[in-house]
Amino acid sequence: MKVHGLPTRSIRSLEGGESVEIIDQTLLPFRFERRVLTTWEDAVEAIRNMRVRGAPLIGITGAWGVVLALKTCHDNESLLKAAEVIRNARPTAVNLSWAVTRMLGALLPREPKDRFFTAVRLAEEMTQEDVERCRRIGEAGLGVLRELYQEKRRPLNVLTHCNAGWLATVDYGTALSPIYQAHDEGIPLHVWVEETRPRNQGLLTEWELREHGVAHTLIVDNAGGHLMQHGDVDAVIVGADRITRRGDVANKIGTYLKALAAFDNGVPFYVAAPSSTVDWRLLSGRQEIEIENRGADEVLGVHGMDKSGKPATVRLAPEGTPVANPAFDVTPSRLVTAFFTERGVFKPEELYSGFADQLSAYQ
Amino acid sequence: MKVHGLPTRSIRSLEGGESVEIIDQTLLPFRFERRVLTTWEDAVEAIRNMRVRGAPLIGITGAWGVVLALKTCHDNESLLKAAEVIRNARPTAVNLSWAVTRMLGALLPREPKDRFFTAVRLAEEMTQEDVERCRRIGEAGLGVLRELYQEKRRPLNVLTHCNAGWLATVDYGTALSPIYQAHDEGIPLHVWVEETRPRNQGLLTEWELREHGVAHTLIVDNAGGHLMQHGDVDAVIVGADRITRRGDVANKIGTYLKALAAFDNGVPFYVAAPSSTVDWRLLSGRQEIEIENRGADEVLGVHGMDKSGKPATVRLAPEGTPVANPAFDVTPSRLVTAFFTERGVFKPEELYSGFADQLSAYQ
Repeated sequence: MKVHGLPTRSIRSLEGGESVEIIDQTLLPFRFERRVLTTWEDAVEAIRNMRVRGAPLIGITGAWGVVLALKTCHDNESLLKAAEVIRNARPTAVNLSWAVTRMLGALLPREPKDRFFTAVRLAEEMTQEDVERCRRIGEAGLGVLRELYQEKRRPLNVLTHCNAGWLATVDYGTALSPIYQAHDEGIPLHVWVEETRPRNQGLLTEWELREHGVAHTLIVDNAGGHLMQHGDVDAVIVGADRITRRGDVANKIGTYLKALAAFDNGVPFYVAAPSSTVDWRLLSGRQEIEIENRGADEVLGVHGMDKSGKPATVRLAPEGTPVANPAFDVTPSRLVTAFFTERGVFKPEELYSGFADQLSAYQ
Repeated sequence: MKVHGLPTRSIRSLEGGESVEIIDQTLLPFRFERRVLTTWEDAVEAIRNMRVRGAPLIGITGAWGVVLALKTCHDNESLLKAAEVIRNARPTAVNLSWAVTRMLGALLPREPKDRFFTAVRLAEEMTQEDVERCRRIGEAGLGVLRELYQEKRRPLNVLTHCNAGWLATVDYGTALSPIYQAHDEGIPLHVWVEETRPRNQGLLTEWELREHGVAHTLIVDNAGGHLMQHGDVDAVIVGADRITRRGDVANKIGTYLKALAAFDNGVPFYVAAPSSTVDWRLLSGRQEIEIENRGADEVLGVHGMDKSGKPATVRLAPEGTPVANPAFDVTPSRLVTAFFTERGVFKPEELYSGFADQLSAYQ
């Protein structure tokens, strides 16, 4: 999608895979700055400190991290050790583990000397696959938005939580992919952007939409229910960090509250995600998905700009204030209208049969 | 309630009514500073600039403002002129107008020379009434918390949104009154404090509970649903800005989302408010209560402290970013378990009969 009017992706390899360039998303939306990763430890640091974020992009960065690991890991033992550290850089996103496993599956059967080239080729392939997957996720959602527009015949109001835009993937995004494609096709729409405390990733969505020219309005997380009560939301579209086989959805904290409000007001609630987000081993999201508890600083501190436009932080309460900071919540499948996936639109109960061919990986 | 270990109220008279002491709430929770009002213009300034806030406290400050006016207004004309300025210091606070009217009603029939003593006595009476009303609201809730503790036999977890504590009244508060009374009685409890964007009044609640020694944890507004899903909330208690006769509740934006989550998880949802909050003319909150839309600055800016502890503000997105900022939402009565009032605990459908004697004012 576009930045300063130019097509841009969130990650790309440099020098034939010797290094990888990302956008340092901790500086966004206040500063747009690229960052070069040259070691696998750089990749771990970037994932852990959320310089890259969003399940798909974390996965792709993990794959490139394995590539970078091969620059110094010349035997199985050191490679596996590095891979484990990469795999555990963030606990909740299933894509990271999936990406590392896929890389290892291709590399371990090969002689160490042949591995680097194989790794670069596979990481590149996975990167392209992600772009294509997100494009198709958007296509699935676009069909639904087209129908909605046929019905409403006025600009559509879509609400989204957090950032599941191109910054969270390689390009297009997941939740925002249908929105970009609808916008590019000329369907008039307007997006309610929730700021998404504590990390305010909604500001990334605001930045993305602004840069791409999509009409939008920033709101606090508390406001979404009120807007739905008053008929000001035609559809909710969010991303997902992990989905169980019955369609329970782990996503950014607060998603569940919007799903409840959508259900209460008859607003369709869509989850846009690649099928790799589904963890087929899991049934009950609430009981089986481990929710990451993050540090107090995210709640106690708010990043922004000072009067002169420089990045600045304020603290909301004294150090030592007791804080809880669960990063995700689980939306039960009964509140999900449908999933937008790379294979089309699926109701929660259709997921299992729609992706039956993928289940073998878990048996 | 306590500040630095000492019993404290949000307002008190000094020198027999010659001056009035408030807490400058614009500095809280970052600095605790008292401020003495000696003229009626001081009272207007304090109300207008939100040094005092919360409908009950604004009303009481208005009453004391009329007392101060009598120091210089020795005839009807000047008194009425001052009273009108006090009445209009905040346009929407009904309590302010009510308090000024009540004061004038007692003063105007009297000779100017007798007015000051009458005014001090009435303002003192209104102050005491507010304390007593809040104490009884808390007593109503205390009964419920006692029962809950009998049942659970472990520390109770109560979630609250915004600030309906003693800072918004003279003492006790509304939603926090049962919590203070349960704590003082020795019922072990812990409060989940939601920060309450956009104005972060949850930080006032955090400060109140800290000063009074009640165990609590600060969370973002998004986290409440997740905590309820996991059995970590035994009851939700919130205040109210307006209640319809069937029990729909207008309260700080985001309240509705917590009510939905409470209902979805079988967590009781209580609204603590004096009966004066019920607008008996209204039936449907969603259709009949006009929701105030406030300025973009509240969403775009966040107040806190910088590293050196000085008050500071950051801006989240560039000026001109499109923002919507509805200040309240409406929780339908079907999601309300019961109301804590100065006359006891009422289910939504019992409100009308429970306060039938008050309806005459509307006929």
